[in-house]
Amino acid sequence: MTDNLMAFLNEKKLAIDTQLTKAIEKLHAPDELKEAMNYSISAGGKRLRPILLLSTIEALGEEESLGMGTAIALEMIHTYSLIHDDLPAMDNDDLRRGRPTNHKVFGEAAAILAGDALLTYAFECLVSNSEKLSDTLKLKLTRKLAHAAGPEGMVGGQQEDLSAEGRELSIDQLKHIHDLKTGRLLTFAIESGALIGGANDEQLKGLRRFSKHLGLAFQIRDDILDIEGNEEDIGKPVGSDEANNKSTYPKLLSLQGAKDTLHDHIDQALVVLESLDLKSSRLEQLTHYILDRKQ
Amino acid sequence: MTDNLMAFLNEKKLAIDTQLTKAIEKLHAPDELKEAMNYSISAGGKRLRPILLLSTIEALGEEESLGMGTAIALEMIHTYSLIHDDLPAMDNDDLRRGRPTNHKVFGEAAAILAGDALLTYAFECLVSNSEKLSDTLKLKLTRKLAHAAGPEGMVGGQQEDLSAEGRELSIDQLKHIHDLKTGRLLTFAIESGALIGGANDEQLKGLRRFSKHLGLAFQIRDDILDIEGNEEDIGKPVGSDEANNKSTYPKLLSLQGAKDTLHDHIDQALVVLESLDLKSSRLEQLTHYILDRKQ
Repeated sequence: MTDNLMAFLNEKKLAIDTQLTKAIEKLHAPDELKEAMNYSISAGGKRLRPILLLSTIEALGEEESLGMGTAIALEMIHTYSLIHDDLPAMDNDDLRRGRPTNHKVFGEAAAILAGDALLTYAFECLVSNSEKLSDTLKLKLTRKLAHAAGPEGMVGGQQEDLSAEGRELSIDQLKHIHDLKTGRLLTFAIESGALIGGANDEQLKGLRRFSKHLGLAFQIRDDILDIEGNEEDIGKPVGSDEANNKSTYPKLLSLQGAKDTLHDHIDQALVVLESLDLKSSRLEQLTHYILDRKQ
Repeated sequence: MTDNLMAFLNEKKLAIDTQLTKAIEKLHAPDELKEAMNYSISAGGKRLRPILLLSTIEALGEEESLGMGTAIALEMIHTYSLIHDDLPAMDNDDLRRGRPTNHKVFGEAAAILAGDALLTYAFECLVSNSEKLSDTLKLKLTRKLAHAAGPEGMVGGQQEDLSAEGRELSIDQLKHIHDLKTGRLLTFAIESGALIGGANDEQLKGLRRFSKHLGLAFQIRDDILDIEGNEEDIGKPVGSDEANNKSTYPKLLSLQGAKDTLHDHIDQALVVLESLDLKSSRLEQLTHYILDRKQ
């Protein structure tokens, strides 16, 4: 990673972290609830989704700050999904990013409520923290976020993942589950950035295509990191997919096949980007980052 | 209950049930998820919140159907809260309305996801199923619903309830928890009906006051039913509050004191209603129903 990209990522992350912390601090809510919400919100995520959102706005020449309300809403929904995913009844994970998971610290009941609170509050933040957007656009973003995160999107993918436990998946089934589980929120990041940035129809379509390749690349890289990554960097034991007998890209395509496919999607993402009339240097850098990331 | 009121409640319930079932049926989502969502949605609730919403619109002389999108969103959020509340980590209830609770039938993981799905989909339904409302009004309703259901509302109340377990509460603490846990959604029902029905400022303020008395009356009646109710009607064992050592109105005020307070709130709710220029006969009937209800 270049120093320039690292500085950019750190700067954006700081701006997003500040807004997230502010949004939770100002709540008139029970301290136990705020603490549990804040614990997971400030657990050191990469903020990839909100950074993609803001960078898409920038690529269209618009003011990034227009998207901050949507960006923090998106990160809250991503965070709630991790809290619920880690629960004993779900993946039963004790560690996330090297720290005890939410329910390990606050108990299961409080973790369920912290997740529910973040999910609900996300919609309030989107609607309330976007003063400069038109009501029509805010409504569109609300509908798209609910759709991406709901039964036809992320939650649907979690259910399919649950139902697939112990079954060998085909590559198409694996792709489908990942598209729902992680792809839809990544696509929302880029699509909402495009809408806020005033993309024309061609740019909107292109950016959606870009986001599909990026989402797949992101997931394949995740699976490769589970084999080749450094435990300290990824914050969990290497080899956990293998140990849990999970269907992954390396398992279905071989490690080399997965790497080739990863490169394919990165190349295609870059080709789409170049074809659009955008100031896309940040989006290009982020695409390379997804290829090279260590965590 | 008069035959007239019973017929009215049944008719409204049927209309709401139909829309709820339709909304879930049309989802392109995993069957297991739709089944678990539908199980709790069609578990035979009274639909009190959506009926209050629609009746408030009617009292203002507007077309009830304008509020159907908001009404089903509200009922979905109420239903998700029951599913999560019943989980082993929360109240650990095996029965609700005489049927096994969601996690007893579908397992804990699927019950958590069904709740998450209903909560998220509620916002999509509110925004998508209200074509005739202005964008500005839809946004206002979205913000108010998220606020009423989120960390400063219902979820906050659930956390306070959790933290209060085993502690003796003062009457003010009890009121505060109930205001958050059940009052806020009831107030949203009436306030959103008022906004959709085009209430003027005075009517809006009055209807909010009305909803506060109604919410308190509803909760006190609930506590009394736990002592004097019929197990078959209420769908759970009588005396469970006492057995769980829960703070209730009868415990803090004596049974007679709770009944007096219940009548006070009903009287005050009716006085407020009369003072407003509304076609309020349905709202009056619903107020009497809350006083007399057996379940």
